[in-house]
Amino acid sequence: MPLPTMSQEEMHYKPAELVSTDADSDASADYIYVDVKAPILAGLALKCFAWTLESRLVGRWVLQYLKNENLITKIFLKSRFHEPPMYTPNYVIKDREEPSMIQIDPTLSACERSSVAADCLASSDSSAMSFRRWTIRDYSKAYKSGTLTPTMVAERFLQAVKESLQPAPGMGFFINYSEEEILKQAELSTSRYNKGTQLSILDGVPIAVKDEIDCLPYPTTGGSKWLPKARKVTEDAAAVQRLRECGALLVGKTNMHELGMGTTGINPHYGASRNPYDSSRISGGSSGGSAAVVSAGLCPAALGVDGGGSVRMPSALCGIVGFKATFGRISSSGVLPLNWTLGMVGVHAATVEDALIMYAVMNGHLPSYRTISIPPPTNLPLLKEFGETQGGSPISGIRFAKYTKWFEDCDETVHETCYKALNAMQQRYGCKVVEVTLPEIEEMRLGHYITIGSECWTSLGLDYNKWGRQVSAFDTRVSFAVYSCFTNREFLAAQRLRHRQMHFHMEIFKKADILVTPTSGCTAQPIPEAALKVGELNYVVGAKMMHYQIAANFLGLPAITIPVGYDADGLPIGLQLLGPPWSEATLLRVAYAIESLCVTKRPEIFYDLLA
Amino acid sequence: MPLPTMSQEEMHYKPAELVSTDADSDASADYIYVDVKAPILAGLALKCFAWTLESRLVGRWVLQYLKNENLITKIFLKSRFHEPPMYTPNYVIKDREEPSMIQIDPTLSACERSSVAADCLASSDSSAMSFRRWTIRDYSKAYKSGTLTPTMVAERFLQAVKESLQPAPGMGFFINYSEEEILKQAELSTSRYNKGTQLSILDGVPIAVKDEIDCLPYPTTGGSKWLPKARKVTEDAAAVQRLRECGALLVGKTNMHELGMGTTGINPHYGASRNPYDSSRISGGSSGGSAAVVSAGLCPAALGVDGGGSVRMPSALCGIVGFKATFGRISSSGVLPLNWTLGMVGVHAATVEDALIMYAVMNGHLPSYRTISIPPPTNLPLLKEFGETQGGSPISGIRFAKYTKWFEDCDETVHETCYKALNAMQQRYGCKVVEVTLPEIEEMRLGHYITIGSECWTSLGLDYNKWGRQVSAFDTRVSFAVYSCFTNREFLAAQRLRHRQMHFHMEIFKKADILVTPTSGCTAQPIPEAALKVGELNYVVGAKMMHYQIAANFLGLPAITIPVGYDADGLPIGLQLLGPPWSEATLLRVAYAIESLCVTKRPEIFYDLLA
Repeated sequence: MPLPTMSQEEMHYKPAELVSTDADSDASADYIYVDVKAPILAGLALKCFAWTLESRLVGRWVLQYLKNENLITKIFLKSRFHEPPMYTPNYVIKDREEPSMIQIDPTLSACERSSVAADCLASSDSSAMSFRRWTIRDYSKAYKSGTLTPTMVAERFLQAVKESLQPAPGMGFFINYSEEEILKQAELSTSRYNKGTQLSILDGVPIAVKDEIDCLPYPTTGGSKWLPKARKVTEDAAAVQRLRECGALLVGKTNMHELGMGTTGINPHYGASRNPYDSSRISGGSSGGSAAVVSAGLCPAALGVDGGGSVRMPSALCGIVGFKATFGRISSSGVLPLNWTLGMVGVHAATVEDALIMYAVMNGHLPSYRTISIPPPTNLPLLKEFGETQGGSPISGIRFAKYTKWFEDCDETVHETCYKALNAMQQRYGCKVVEVTLPEIEEMRLGHYITIGSECWTSLGLDYNKWGRQVSAFDTRVSFAVYSCFTNREFLAAQRLRHRQMHFHMEIFKKADILVTPTSGCTAQPIPEAALKVGELNYVVGAKMMHYQIAANFLGLPAITIPVGYDADGLPIGLQLLGPPWSEATLLRVAYAIESLCVTKRPEIFYDLLA
Repeated sequence: MPLPTMSQEEMHYKPAELVSTDADSDASADYIYVDVKAPILAGLALKCFAWTLESRLVGRWVLQYLKNENLITKIFLKSRFHEPPMYTPNYVIKDREEPSMIQIDPTLSACERSSVAADCLASSDSSAMSFRRWTIRDYSKAYKSGTLTPTMVAERFLQAVKESLQPAPGMGFFINYSEEEILKQAELSTSRYNKGTQLSILDGVPIAVKDEIDCLPYPTTGGSKWLPKARKVTEDAAAVQRLRECGALLVGKTNMHELGMGTTGINPHYGASRNPYDSSRISGGSSGGSAAVVSAGLCPAALGVDGGGSVRMPSALCGIVGFKATFGRISSSGVLPLNWTLGMVGVHAATVEDALIMYAVMNGHLPSYRTISIPPPTNLPLLKEFGETQGGSPISGIRFAKYTKWFEDCDETVHETCYKALNAMQQRYGCKVVEVTLPEIEEMRLGHYITIGSECWTSLGLDYNKWGRQVSAFDTRVSFAVYSCFTNREFLAAQRLRHRQMHFHMEIFKKADILVTPTSGCTAQPIPEAALKVGELNYVVGAKMMHYQIAANFLGLPAITIPVGYDADGLPIGLQLLGPPWSEATLLRVAYAIESLCVTKRPEIFYDLLA
């Protein structure tokens, strides 16, 4: 059976430096509206599809057909590029020193880092907000004042988690948590507060960890049934270690899309992680459980891993803040190697101030021979200036880049809600909006997909073939079959596209400080009944949800999502800010301003641990 | 037809930091002696083999069989590694400031650079050498004294090239040279000398350029018949531009193995580039023509490109110096993109002092977004100290790392001759020899092969399929067929091995300054009659010739080969020095010392342009 072939037609891409990113760029005419050609499958149909792709004879033929249909053959094998591959996010970082930012000394301990961050915070407790989740500071104050103890919070937490399991199948928040372990940690923390020897602002504060990140005493399943057979956990991940040093109450391992290979958070082994705003809907993925537990009030913050929007997208769908820092600024040591050049530990938090504290604690250098340019310590914004100076000054003059065609290529309610937030920023702070063109967005999506798939397949292929296939969700099996079909040439062409995108983004960041988009192209989708047992394959909705998040991973740029409103069904909508590598402090500060302008709603499922 | 499969046996590689590079390392037991399993083919057999690999049905099966036989499947698909991929040579370069070195100011013009280099040279003219080719300084002196003019040299050069074409098929030195162009340049240079306005020490000095590097007014064939159809030359390569600014007499484009895809320099389109020491033998490759013209006295120096030993190996086979600098230190702008992370412009020169001058002129920064760590300007050694200070001091204390098992895994005459040079260095300068183990040499060879093949196929595949296949040598066709069969996973596993090798080499460079080996495992081989028309496929000899050169490309390390003796047939033998990224000045200085201790023989074919 000969393989299906494309026409011999070739595509020529002009050298990136000849492609304009201005509003009137020719490249805007080439914008490809979200349109993935793939079957939407669940249940038996999905099983049959997986078996087909895995079959030796027919599988290759079908995969080739899908590659042709989805422009992969055309873009990655039939196109000419001038740029050499850029294999990793690649830039020289120059953190800017500004009066209203402070730089974290890289030699500080985790506890010292948390105090530096706490000193940045505004004194106001944002009580103007209509609904507000408890923050790290709220926990810390309650513990210090003695109105509550970490042990009482741990007990309430455990009670809430039990409630969340009813009615069956429950909210699917956690893959693993140990009552005994949580109570033990809480008692130690309580006794520290009793003696006045609490370790930091995080002491006794419940923090959940995505089950992709090592955290003793739990195994790391990655949402699978088989990974702990192949890989033992012997120590905390570097990021978790920092939190433990601060005395954080590590409350267990959250649910996730199996091996991070999907966007819904529907996991046939551990249940779908459900959305606190509507438990019949997804929380998003892959870090769905972490987003959901923060949304539901079980923790003020949780760790996720963001390799293709996996922190930001579920955060947007669950109505919370999601922050991914510049590539390399949080150690990946102790994180499942699902990829090497795209993913990083990220923060889910109820508020921007908690994202700032968490990041300050975890930020740090990688071992020198893993990356060429060792990222320097980051700058933190002085949020207290919002309270203490004349309103607008901390962010007046900020320029938002917006590519309207892209911005509006999503559900109407999404871009309308995002526009409202943007307008509010213009009116309140006099921010500017600069119209730009971002060329080759669809190419970037596919390039990222080939890259993450190839890295994942290289990292896990051997173990997956040995332990995994027979016990994996069928959508995971399809993903592995697709990942294994890419050649050296497709992978390398993807890296040439990475080079082009780096150029385009850096050009845009000459014109503006921040690129602004919705976070997800739609709000949380319903969970199809058929998906619960074997998984679901829905690249169409997947592409819609991931439509705006890829650059932060492919180019290692920092990005943050902030909840800015709700659709007619009361489902949250997030606005995303993406900046150049040195812009973390700016992103956090602008996000803080946006947060203070937007109304927040209480989710349907909410546990009030400090009440 | 099912694909041939390997046994399910897996290989486990310990984390690199647990593998010792000491003399008594366990890894030494795993040394794999050069043993490539591949047919040696030429003539009709080679044609049939190429057609087989290119056939859709059988080709894949045979390629899979070859991958299994050559450990590719076992190492790249059945092995576990702990290291993430390292996609590019990756380190922070710290040039050392030492009293006997000078640093080139990156803002200097090409001419200023050449004077800085000239100021480094020893005053002695090494007249003690039994046979010595004319150096750049000799040309410059002759021109300045008026005993000769560039025009006279150009005429002698053209006469010599004509002689080299007799008897047919001739020496195969050049692919392209224009009498008119050369005479025009020479006349301009002559008139500059007449007016005393010569541009630099290089003014009027004949320099040849490998036909892989753009040099006006010639097309760049890369040794192929078809590339100029796909790619036009519109300006000089950056390296050539520097030489032209210095007034160098650019004498044409030298012959090379087609597209750099072989090690013999046998090119069916432009003739085999033959060895001046024995014209029935190869010059080596791929920069065979450049090595041969320097060896034969037609130029004191020539440009090559070194992606897998392509400058050093033919230099060794032709009895001259070959120098490859640290990755990124000579711009690749205007060089055929046969790969992106391995190759670099290198220098063929009759003497170390000329290698130093050429490098000083061409050294320079790359555009910032191509590499993460912009290599700083290099240091140059003050060779004059050899003449002016007490003998040993400039290099006393230098420690050579030697892995005996590897050093001696070559023809006996080769390692015996190299030992003599090493012993002379110990006796004359008190240099030390440190016994080490370099683990996974065979893995490195295969990893480099997969990398260069994948990058080449990505870069040229589209044009090759369109223009190239039908008009390519059959060994080139086999190479492309092999290059196209590697998957994403094999490519990525190769990058994980790159990471391991970087670690091993850096460990060795903690124990010693320079890793010393023979350059090629054998001397120049005879040219088989059957190879002349369709090419030759001899991976067995190829692996022997490339046995010591890979690390400089895979890891971007600087390396130099110096002629140290001759075998019983009078064929040259080279010694290779490989150093850490910051060691260029040390390499040049040690090479200079070795050169002065070794006897040089006049080749069979030699043109004495200054006589």
